[in-house]
Amino acid sequence: MSKIRRFSIGNPINTEAVVQKVPIEKGELPYFERIQQMELKSDGDAQETMVQRDELWYRMGQEDRIYGLGENVRGINKRGWIYESNCSDDPNHTEEKRSLYGAHNFFVVNGAQTFGMFIDYPGKLVLDMGYERMDEIRIMPQDWNLDLYILEGDTVLDIVKGFRKLIGRSYIPPKWAFGFGQSRWGYQTKEDIRTVVRGYRKNQIPLDMVYLDIDYMEEFKDFTVNQQRFPDFPAFVEEMKREHIHLVPIIDAGVKIEEGYDVYEEGVKEGYFCKDQSGKEFVGAVWPGKVHFPDVLNREARKWFGRNYKSLLDQGIEGFWNDMNEPAIFYSEQNLEGVVKKLKSMKCQNMDMWEIFEFRDQVNELANNPEDYQSFYHNMEGKSIRHDKVHNLYGFGMTRAAGEAFEELEPDKRILIFSRSSYIGMHRYGGIWMGDNKSWWSHLLLNLKMLPSLNMCGFLYTGADLGGFGADTTEDLLLRWMALGIFTPLMRNHAALGTREQECYQFTRKEAFRNLIGVRYGLTPYLYSEYMKAALRDEMMFLPLAFVYPEDEYAKDVEDQLLVGESIMIAPVYTQNARGRYVYLPEPMKLVRLASMEQIQTEVLEQGHYYIETPLEEVVFFIRPEKIVPYTQPGQYLEETEEKELKLLHFVTKSAEYELYQDDGYSKDYENPAHVKKLHVKAE
Amino acid sequence: MSKIRRFSIGNPINTEAVVQKVPIEKGELPYFERIQQMELKSDGDAQETMVQRDELWYRMGQEDRIYGLGENVRGINKRGWIYESNCSDDPNHTEEKRSLYGAHNFFVVNGAQTFGMFIDYPGKLVLDMGYERMDEIRIMPQDWNLDLYILEGDTVLDIVKGFRKLIGRSYIPPKWAFGFGQSRWGYQTKEDIRTVVRGYRKNQIPLDMVYLDIDYMEEFKDFTVNQQRFPDFPAFVEEMKREHIHLVPIIDAGVKIEEGYDVYEEGVKEGYFCKDQSGKEFVGAVWPGKVHFPDVLNREARKWFGRNYKSLLDQGIEGFWNDMNEPAIFYSEQNLEGVVKKLKSMKCQNMDMWEIFEFRDQVNELANNPEDYQSFYHNMEGKSIRHDKVHNLYGFGMTRAAGEAFEELEPDKRILIFSRSSYIGMHRYGGIWMGDNKSWWSHLLLNLKMLPSLNMCGFLYTGADLGGFGADTTEDLLLRWMALGIFTPLMRNHAALGTREQECYQFTRKEAFRNLIGVRYGLTPYLYSEYMKAALRDEMMFLPLAFVYPEDEYAKDVEDQLLVGESIMIAPVYTQNARGRYVYLPEPMKLVRLASMEQIQTEVLEQGHYYIETPLEEVVFFIRPEKIVPYTQPGQYLEETEEKELKLLHFVTKSAEYELYQDDGYSKDYENPAHVKKLHVKAE
Repeated sequence: MSKIRRFSIGNPINTEAVVQKVPIEKGELPYFERIQQMELKSDGDAQETMVQRDELWYRMGQEDRIYGLGENVRGINKRGWIYESNCSDDPNHTEEKRSLYGAHNFFVVNGAQTFGMFIDYPGKLVLDMGYERMDEIRIMPQDWNLDLYILEGDTVLDIVKGFRKLIGRSYIPPKWAFGFGQSRWGYQTKEDIRTVVRGYRKNQIPLDMVYLDIDYMEEFKDFTVNQQRFPDFPAFVEEMKREHIHLVPIIDAGVKIEEGYDVYEEGVKEGYFCKDQSGKEFVGAVWPGKVHFPDVLNREARKWFGRNYKSLLDQGIEGFWNDMNEPAIFYSEQNLEGVVKKLKSMKCQNMDMWEIFEFRDQVNELANNPEDYQSFYHNMEGKSIRHDKVHNLYGFGMTRAAGEAFEELEPDKRILIFSRSSYIGMHRYGGIWMGDNKSWWSHLLLNLKMLPSLNMCGFLYTGADLGGFGADTTEDLLLRWMALGIFTPLMRNHAALGTREQECYQFTRKEAFRNLIGVRYGLTPYLYSEYMKAALRDEMMFLPLAFVYPEDEYAKDVEDQLLVGESIMIAPVYTQNARGRYVYLPEPMKLVRLASMEQIQTEVLEQGHYYIETPLEEVVFFIRPEKIVPYTQPGQYLEETEEKELKLLHFVTKSAEYELYQDDGYSKDYENPAHVKKLHVKAE
Repeated sequence: MSKIRRFSIGNPINTEAVVQKVPIEKGELPYFERIQQMELKSDGDAQETMVQRDELWYRMGQEDRIYGLGENVRGINKRGWIYESNCSDDPNHTEEKRSLYGAHNFFVVNGAQTFGMFIDYPGKLVLDMGYERMDEIRIMPQDWNLDLYILEGDTVLDIVKGFRKLIGRSYIPPKWAFGFGQSRWGYQTKEDIRTVVRGYRKNQIPLDMVYLDIDYMEEFKDFTVNQQRFPDFPAFVEEMKREHIHLVPIIDAGVKIEEGYDVYEEGVKEGYFCKDQSGKEFVGAVWPGKVHFPDVLNREARKWFGRNYKSLLDQGIEGFWNDMNEPAIFYSEQNLEGVVKKLKSMKCQNMDMWEIFEFRDQVNELANNPEDYQSFYHNMEGKSIRHDKVHNLYGFGMTRAAGEAFEELEPDKRILIFSRSSYIGMHRYGGIWMGDNKSWWSHLLLNLKMLPSLNMCGFLYTGADLGGFGADTTEDLLLRWMALGIFTPLMRNHAALGTREQECYQFTRKEAFRNLIGVRYGLTPYLYSEYMKAALRDEMMFLPLAFVYPEDEYAKDVEDQLLVGESIMIAPVYTQNARGRYVYLPEPMKLVRLASMEQIQTEVLEQGHYYIETPLEEVVFFIRPEKIVPYTQPGQYLEETEEKELKLLHFVTKSAEYELYQDDGYSKDYENPAHVKKLHVKAE
């Protein structure tokens, strides 16, 4: 059981991250000390300046581990780096980055003392997790208006469960969203989409979704469809549905400024866009050129923005992804003017190194400039609030707009929605994908590491762009990544314009892709059950070994294996040219080796360290003792899969029980007891 | 024994990479097929165009491995990626990069057939090592004027040794260059340097060198010293020598255009700079602003450039590093003019996405622009040759200029020299460092992987910037990196302006740094012996396990352990927060665990897989059976270390012998038999 205490400093903004009302404690904040003093600070080049130090400070024990922080670079154990909650459109997820697209201020310290902390603060927050000094945590908000929740419990899992109850039930997508989807920035026309579907169907590689990136829109205008390239869109949506394919279009945050464009005109008329200091609509630029940003933190504006999804729902669409909602800004009108003026004034004839660097920086810092984030305002409950104070809520607000609208527009049907940017609380309205990753082997491992951290923060429907979004992939990277991706609720292959084409059928080993994705489809009875139980019981679907075997010194350190639900442990290969990898078994397990859903080999292994050979064409996982994995034979799409007979994989020495969750995948009567069937296996 | 055959296509440029004359064979090139045909090629976005395919093509066996290619990203086994030999100043060594600073066109295919290939070609060369199709090698030069060497032998090591003989003996630095050096872009004054030396000496952390980055120069002018910040430089060099510190200044490729600056004026007068098409000196810009590039491919100009090092030798300097010699170009006069004009003509008021991207690209593509490399010329043996045809020779030429000058100016003394850019052949004149890496854990591992590939290509004196050059390091990353760096001949800590200060004494665990670097100093009798023997016998100092245990299926796949010389195997930890790592022992070995050179624990382990715990403060390595590791107690600098008593670590069950190489570390009578002492150990 867990205990939650809330401490309030200053006048926190109500983010609506939490759903339980926790009374504010009057006493001192436990664990942390607030340190306020002037200090000499070096800038790294022998320049020292006096700075005001003002932080929450905690001394770690040598063995302390830190879990959480949701979407971020680095390990499952976050210790040893400095993070910033500052939602950023940055496609280079290298190790030194401090922010990605989300702001997930929940973490658990596990060691000398064990406790959880949630910092409900929507501005930029710096979290030094042992960077400046390896044994200190330092928490530094931009201003001191924040709610702090301290969570305690018997185990890390208790604390996490307590937190998940605090923030409310995770989003549940329709069941078809557990199928495999293909995406690419660059599918220009209906015919491009048909080619993709044909490519999969012809090669009998299962597929349930094709994503529409920005190309489907009319000049990148939200809620429009290009009539030249996608004429009679409803008929095309219908055509795809007959092929058992869902089209999932993207929606961007910025609304194009264009006379006659209804969304723009309505928004201006109703005053639903963010304003600058003078009260005029703030002008940024994104894909369509100049845009206004819908004020999704304003209840009324949010309602209005959400209702716009109706036009696509009416055309048969049942799923969306919300993008560019950090919000990304390529440039702002005011900033661009300044830079162009500056560039023109520079004597560009004999620039020395400092001038050429400034020239370059001027241009490169046009995008996502902190000054721009300080120059527009939201109207929250009648109060004007400068954007940077609530920056991390924007993606949450946009996705909430959609989620709330779907409740109203489609009360009886689940709609797929996931977002790039997020804040805790958004997990109730939609999932997230892990953003614009790269075709790097290191991002396969990062994908794995983010899964439990995201689950801790409520994000269950998630996954990474398999094969990598930016840069050119290779066939082996895609195969290995797929072998992880088949376990993630959101399973999609997505790539950027100009990179190598990476639809599975583009490569030689078509049978391997068919079989790998077939394994995903075959395992959906298990994966869907585990997802639904995790969502309905506020639990994690992906768990670090440390959470399940807290007394096992080896398990605590494992950063490249996960438990997936109650029965399965995975240990994917994430290095090129490797014939296998080391795997640690914290208890006896049954190794399952699948060349396809029809070619299954198993072997019981004792607790210990192993080198497990894993050919490119195989999926390997492990079943825990007295556990069951229900599966079936895959079809070409999920619906076809569901018609097949249910079978069981298991590792049973005495007896085992499994709760299978089955529903129609569309309705919302989640708690209906008829959805849960108990399966039993007894040793013969 | 190895066999070398040479095949010549077209009119190859004489790169002087090889030193043995191999007659040209008339017959067909073995192994490879030349494929010339027109083909439809997709650009990744459904646009297809006809392209001329013209390549050397080889079909790999499924188990084939590819070794070599020197300085590059990715694995020891290079299979599965596409590389380009195209020396590039690119500080982001991410997985998808195809070129780093060097061009090292030697590789060995090991598998169904085993052979080596050296492509002696100084232009841009594309090497598809199983990228487009996993089982094909495709070699694509820009034009068909190249020398091909095919090497065969009984083992991979035979082939490598044959190649090393072909290209001539590797550079040998002075012995003090095996000490530890501290560097930083940002040491501005004498006092900054003194602070660094005091920081090390006060904390008793050994140190032999401080590097001077561009800050020491007068306005970034080669061979000058800033008189305000380094007044009376010879006295300062002398002061440092009394502290047993060698100062090692940087030399850049570009020569500042400035009236009255002797190097500039001489170069213009003698016509020693590269010319544009009209015959005027080509104008690029680097650190000092506008520069000319010395034509180091012209024998006379090279001589002249080399003689300029004399001014610093005369001030007491005994070592240098050559930088920016790809050559890096921030912008060229002509290119900048065009871009500025273009920017001014753009209607910068409402740029859409494509315009803003073009705007950004225009500015970012100013640097190292391929068009610039096509617009200047070298004078090689009287012939004018466009730079791009010989681009990869520039760093070689610059370092050869220095090396040849040192032979003339200091015939009896070794001078330290290493370079950023290189081509095979340059290894005879100097070492290389691994360029502007980052404070990433992945670069620690990349550092390890590059060592054997570089050794194959003749580069023995090498190492990476420990702790990482770009981005902010952490204490644990630096400690772990040091634990690898203590084995690399070039051992230095170097960081970029604006990053976290990372001198060892800046962190808490000063004792750990003292002990780690102490282990390096303690092991120098071994490391120096192994270096000298590798250089004098054309052997590798760092070997993949695959080369030494070719029959061992596990050993073949190991990408994170190396043999260092004949006695030691290393297996450094390269992940954050790890308590240890998996290690494979292909034969019984003695584990050696050192908290310092005085706290040594050993344990004999059988062949097999192990999880080896490795605390942050310890060095762990393994001694092979019947092998000896001579060591000593460390001093605060190398000379002091040499005075200490020699001791032996060993794993002897019967008897072992070791050849210890000892000389004065300065002279060049390398072959003097008195330098080799045989050590014997018999089991008691």
